[in-house]
Amino acid sequence: MTRRERIELAATAVAVGLAALCHYASVTPVLTFFVAAGALALLAHAVGTATEQLGARLGSGGASVVQSALGNLPELFIALFALGDGLVNVVQAALVGSILANSVLVLGVAFTVGGIRNGPQVFDSSRARMISTLTLLAAATMAIPSLAHAFHSPAAAHGATLSLVCAGVLLALFVLTLPWFLRSPPGEEHAPARWSVRTTTVTLAIAGVAAAFTADWFVTALTPAIHTLHMSEEFAGLVIVAIAGNAVENVVGVQLAARNRPDFAIAVILNSSLQVALALTPVLVFVSLLFATHLTLVFPTLLAFVLLLAGILGGFVVNDGQSTWEEGAVLIGFYVVIAASFWWGT
Amino acid sequence: MTRRERIELAATAVAVGLAALCHYASVTPVLTFFVAAGALALLAHAVGTATEQLGARLGSGGASVVQSALGNLPELFIALFALGDGLVNVVQAALVGSILANSVLVLGVAFTVGGIRNGPQVFDSSRARMISTLTLLAAATMAIPSLAHAFHSPAAAHGATLSLVCAGVLLALFVLTLPWFLRSPPGEEHAPARWSVRTTTVTLAIAGVAAAFTADWFVTALTPAIHTLHMSEEFAGLVIVAIAGNAVENVVGVQLAARNRPDFAIAVILNSSLQVALALTPVLVFVSLLFATHLTLVFPTLLAFVLLLAGILGGFVVNDGQSTWEEGAVLIGFYVVIAASFWWGT
Amino acid sequence: MTRRERIELAATAVAVGLAALCHYASVTPVLTFFVAAGALALLAHAVGTATEQLGARLGSGGASVVQSALGNLPELFIALFALGDGLVNVVQAALVGSILANSVLVLGVAFTVGGIRNGPQVFDSSRARMISTLTLLAAATMAIPSLAHAFHSPAAAHGATLSLVCAGVLLALFVLTLPWFLRSPPGEEHAPARWSVRTTTVTLAIAGVAAAFTADWFVTALTPAIHTLHMSEEFAGLVIVAIAGNAVENVVGVQLAARNRPDFAIAVILNSSLQVALALTPVLVFVSLLFATHLTLVFPTLLAFVLLLAGILGGFVVNDGQSTWEEGAVLIGFYVVIAASFWWGT
Repeated sequence: MTRRERIELAATAVAVGLAALCHYASVTPVLTFFVAAGALALLAHAVGTATEQLGARLGSGGASVVQSALGNLPELFIALFALGDGLVNVVQAALVGSILANSVLVLGVAFTVGGIRNGPQVFDSSRARMISTLTLLAAATMAIPSLAHAFHSPAAAHGATLSLVCAGVLLALFVLTLPWFLRSPPGEEHAPARWSVRTTTVTLAIAGVAAAFTADWFVTALTPAIHTLHMSEEFAGLVIVAIAGNAVENVVGVQLAARNRPDFAIAVILNSSLQVALALTPVLVFVSLLFATHLTLVFPTLLAFVLLLAGILGGFVVNDGQSTWEEGAVLIGFYVVIAASFWWGT
Repeated sequence: MTRRERIELAATAVAVGLAALCHYASVTPVLTFFVAAGALALLAHAVGTATEQLGARLGSGGASVVQSALGNLPELFIALFALGDGLVNVVQAALVGSILANSVLVLGVAFTVGGIRNGPQVFDSSRARMISTLTLLAAATMAIPSLAHAFHSPAAAHGATLSLVCAGVLLALFVLTLPWFLRSPPGEEHAPARWSVRTTTVTLAIAGVAAAFTADWFVTALTPAIHTLHMSEEFAGLVIVAIAGNAVENVVGVQLAARNRPDFAIAVILNSSLQVALALTPVLVFVSLLFATHLTLVFPTLLAFVLLLAGILGGFVVNDGQSTWEEGAVLIGFYVVIAASFWWGT
Repeated sequence: MTRRERIELAATAVAVGLAALCHYASVTPVLTFFVAAGALALLAHAVGTATEQLGARLGSGGASVVQSALGNLPELFIALFALGDGLVNVVQAALVGSILANSVLVLGVAFTVGGIRNGPQVFDSSRARMISTLTLLAAATMAIPSLAHAFHSPAAAHGATLSLVCAGVLLALFVLTLPWFLRSPPGEEHAPARWSVRTTTVTLAIAGVAAAFTADWFVTALTPAIHTLHMSEEFAGLVIVAIAGNAVENVVGVQLAARNRPDFAIAVILNSSLQVALALTPVLVFVSLLFATHLTLVFPTLLAFVLLLAGILGGFVVNDGQSTWEEGAVLIGFYVVIAASFWWGT
């Protein structure tokens, strides 16, 4: 374990401790909300590092399985607790928000940082293009039940059924394409494991349990906090949950861009979007059947359009074969305007 | 005539015979519906083979004219009989469905089969890209009257006029671009004619007449069949008519992908979509003026969005320059979810 | 000053004189409307030529600043007078129409002329691709407030606020990306200045003043003219204002395509779209705060979709790396159908 990793894990522990303090000391929910969000972001990063080390032991194929299964753990816990509280709006917005945060915000930051550091970056990896196309196709599939609900009255009454069909298709596609992800995981070649098996397992277990607790505190604080802040549930999901669950986790993508490896950066960042569409989304739809409130894929119409636009814009910025910091800046600007659109609640 | 072609024509004759039997023996409409659909699919294939042979005699330019004129014959007959019965919904859905079936389903199957057989297929033909761009532009043009009707109230009252303007533009574009299609027809270089002129003409004439009759039986069975099956008119048009009219006909595109000729496969498959937008659609709009029920291009809004998405996704999968079976699988999944959205009727 | 430039300036002076005559002699507004539109188109061209000469004196960086600031002068005057008369619909349509006229109509004409003269034109300039991607991203950002208003009820009540946020983001992006435009202006290498400083300054000053007057006459005639012609305000803005303000100005893009320089042609033409989105639009939003009627970015929904489609189609025709006159013809056809959709007013 490097000195840097030690500091990161210590910071994560402190953040989780602070979140616990906020929760159990019943401080204002607004504070708990932001502290827990920060702790979850750090936990997402810790889980990412630990699964990487576990993957190095399991070989690159196994690494991908583990990362697919555990990478979205904090988001999964938040979604489950939110569903338990009937906060379907938050969960729907968080799913679209995760795709948006990766495909637009993190990609924009990566282009900006990469462009400032290295000048215009040219890339031509068939892998980056393939992932961006798959992401667009998956996002479009995921958006169909919402479009059907909004624009085709006969289907509107059958949103739940259509969501299950869509979730089944997405999950089937995940299973079918898993071997491809196993065969050629995005990102850098896997370095040999540096952590012992014991360190890896213990870190993973503790981070997992901590993520579950912190997600609970976060969701408990969410409703009172957003009322105080006059923020909408959609904004909380689309922006706060999505950034907590993805932004820090994807700092690796930004680092790859900074190190002038734009192909890898794009593959890593868009792969996160793809995993949300193909794995996290259908799993939550099916798991929600065990809850009182079911999750459907009938999103508010604007969310569906944002999802399509994120996929289409992601496709274009990858297919044009070049990234500049100006392109990154416009992506970030686009994200800001979308986030602003969801600020107001009913 | 090869042994295989003899078997195909015999199977087609048997299928048409069975459809006739179903129709005149007044068996349940559901059976007639599916048998006639199968017969139409085989007839579409037979017409395709015969026009290919005719084309080989006429030279490659003439071949394209003939294929443009006759290739969509079964679809044209179905649409005419359906318009005669006032089934505008079926015809509108079948037009969008034909573009969707080619640009999404058949392309997805071609990618899947080609990818499984040959691994990832790289292509870089300017012709495939040009056809995919033209298809997107034509699909977008065709979608404008629907978007205007749904989202611009002043235009909503003038849907019929706007449809005629749009159909006029599409037909003018067809006439203008015809020389391009004549000059460089998609698909493989034309082999010398194997059939005699007589065999070709007789086959074409018989298949044409049989297509007209079978289309009549199919449309007669359609309304009672979809009531029995609780299927919507849109689903019947979008999925059943579109697959019967395009899927078997485009088996050649799938075969090209299987033979590791992805550029040709894409050009052939997307060319079918383009012909539907530029030729079949405006011709039906104008011909429908002779009927009691006029065909407009004011589609249900979801159909218009599906049309746009089919064009955009088709553009991306071609422009990314690579096809894998995973990409094919996601295309098929996308098609399944769209088909499911149209299952329910009012 | 070349003989051709003299003739152009003389024609511009005659056109402005005729427009003045129409205005002060109180001829029918329809005549004034079209004569003033023609005069504005010629003035846009004259301003373009004069700023080019000024730029040649200031160096290529300065040239771009001047062109950015003055290039849209006639459009700016029209928009200001129209806002003064409360014609927000006209201004909104003119903004989207300028992007559409450049990205679809002028690009289509350039492809058609270039293709007929030179056959299929292949291009692969990273600059053309980058500009088309930036234009799409800016157009998508600009469309968000309208989508939010139409499809997200909580945001509908806050359209004005969201417009200001969006305009602020667009203006910030303009300021941030200005150095990029200064560093590498689109178009041909700047030839040495041919006009004297005095000729340049005087021409620019006179053309600017004339543009302000002519814009006033044009807007005065607009309302009675469109009533007589049964044309909508949106059509007047989307088509007439946009073509007067962009088409002649962009004759240089068409000339570049004719001279077989498709990369430069695309960069010049799409750069105009980009400047409208990043500079003209936010400036008008902020300046309109000084008027009784404020300009918002809450466009009629169809305008927002048209804006997105113009960006997406522009992205595809550039990314496919080839232009033919057939592609140009379909772009023009697409423009015609959109223009027809806006013919009718309420």
